[in-house]
Amino acid sequence: MQELERTVADLARRVGALEDELAIHRQIVRYGLAVDVGDADGAAAVFTEDTVYDVDGPLLMRGRDGVRDMVRGPRHQAMLPNCAHQIGPAVVELSGERATAIGYSRVYLNRDGGIGIYRVSFNRWELERRGGEWLIARRTTRLVGHAEARAVFRPETD
Amino acid sequence: MQELERTVADLARRVGALEDELAIHRQIVRYGLAVDVGDADGAAAVFTEDTVYDVDGPLLMRGRDGVRDMVRGPRHQAMLPNCAHQIGPAVVELSGERATAIGYSRVYLNRDGGIGIYRVSFNRWELERRGGEWLIARRTTRLVGHAEARAVFRPETD
Amino acid sequence: MQELERTVADLARRVGALEDELAIHRQIVRYGLAVDVGDADGAAAVFTEDTVYDVDGPLLMRGRDGVRDMVRGPRHQAMLPNCAHQIGPAVVELSGERATAIGYSRVYLNRDGGIGIYRVSFNRWELERRGGEWLIARRTTRLVGHAEARAVFRPETD
Repeated sequence: MQELERTVADLARRVGALEDELAIHRQIVRYGLAVDVGDADGAAAVFTEDTVYDVDGPLLMRGRDGVRDMVRGPRHQAMLPNCAHQIGPAVVELSGERATAIGYSRVYLNRDGGIGIYRVSFNRWELERRGGEWLIARRTTRLVGHAEARAVFRPETD
Repeated sequence: MQELERTVADLARRVGALEDELAIHRQIVRYGLAVDVGDADGAAAVFTEDTVYDVDGPLLMRGRDGVRDMVRGPRHQAMLPNCAHQIGPAVVELSGERATAIGYSRVYLNRDGGIGIYRVSFNRWELERRGGEWLIARRTTRLVGHAEARAVFRPETD
Repeated sequence: MQELERTVADLARRVGALEDELAIHRQIVRYGLAVDVGDADGAAAVFTEDTVYDVDGPLLMRGRDGVRDMVRGPRHQAMLPNCAHQIGPAVVELSGERATAIGYSRVYLNRDGGIGIYRVSFNRWELERRGGEWLIARRTTRLVGHAEARAVFRPETD
């Protein structure tokens, strides 16, 4: 009986890890779904209140308000409704109440009837579980070819 | 003992939800794998018998036969073997025997030796579990920038 | 009690299958993350020691050393740091200690300040579990439109 209880406890831990991994994939993807319909609150909701979202260095958003301001700002509004922000593939690594995902993102734009690639980026998402929900505490994005892009994938070695 | 039984029953429900989510991702992706090799039956098999597959409004396929006809039709045949229909990222939401996925799709074409983007789209897949299998009962696709694309991701608010 | 034990054993099998599917997705994606930072050992580590990695036929890599040589070779080095190798979507099929994944890959290049598509490919990954880890024993890649691309997705029928 004790062995069965241990087996069940071990299974519960493994199931929790699977749920975490899928929840993190959903959460990083949801950002794109939200910004592409101009949903500033939805985009902000995948981040922690005190998040830092760093795009190539110059565009540094702080907190959910920083994300909301970017979505409502002139640069993003000029892309609507012609943009598609697609996240992944990414690899998730869990570490208790924290997790890291590294992977790619792409932005497409429909301009003058043709669809082109606006950005392809390397990303690192640092997530925390708060109130039972995985939230992005920091997202670092660098354009492919950017001098700091390599360090996004390999922070410990660069 | 009763508590252990309850724990195991709860785990079984959670494992079922994980299996459903992965099965749905596989099923929506398989459509692309099938149409890119001209497999009309394989493409039709991911839909329900009475499916509706709506591409931008004008191209409205009804039932598996509608999907088969499209795959065998002149427009799709002219793209073979030079097309790649790639699905995702998408976010799945389960609701008992039904589920919804929202996300992106892209079609690439190899033309004159160069590979270009033919389409980037917003999608909503409405799925039902029938006979133990998740099938697409309705797929709504709109080109990025299409006037109805936003409503594909946020049907309740538009 | 015996029934509960059977239920738990069945759950353990299902959880193992879910873990396998996610582990295989991570492993095929990691290849891209590694080659894009020039990590020859990381790229080689996702393959078996005696792997075969076949790109369009002419580029045939044998063993982890073959993969390392390609990453360190002039052609790949000339693409760094401006390339992004993105894997997926893919569908995984498990068969005991072996598994197959079929799906897409894309390579993007940042050239002269603009980001273009360098390759879009059809892939089949044949994996084996060795020492508790899923490794790629064979990867077959064909450019979209290549005469052999269809057979990558449907080897049994072509």
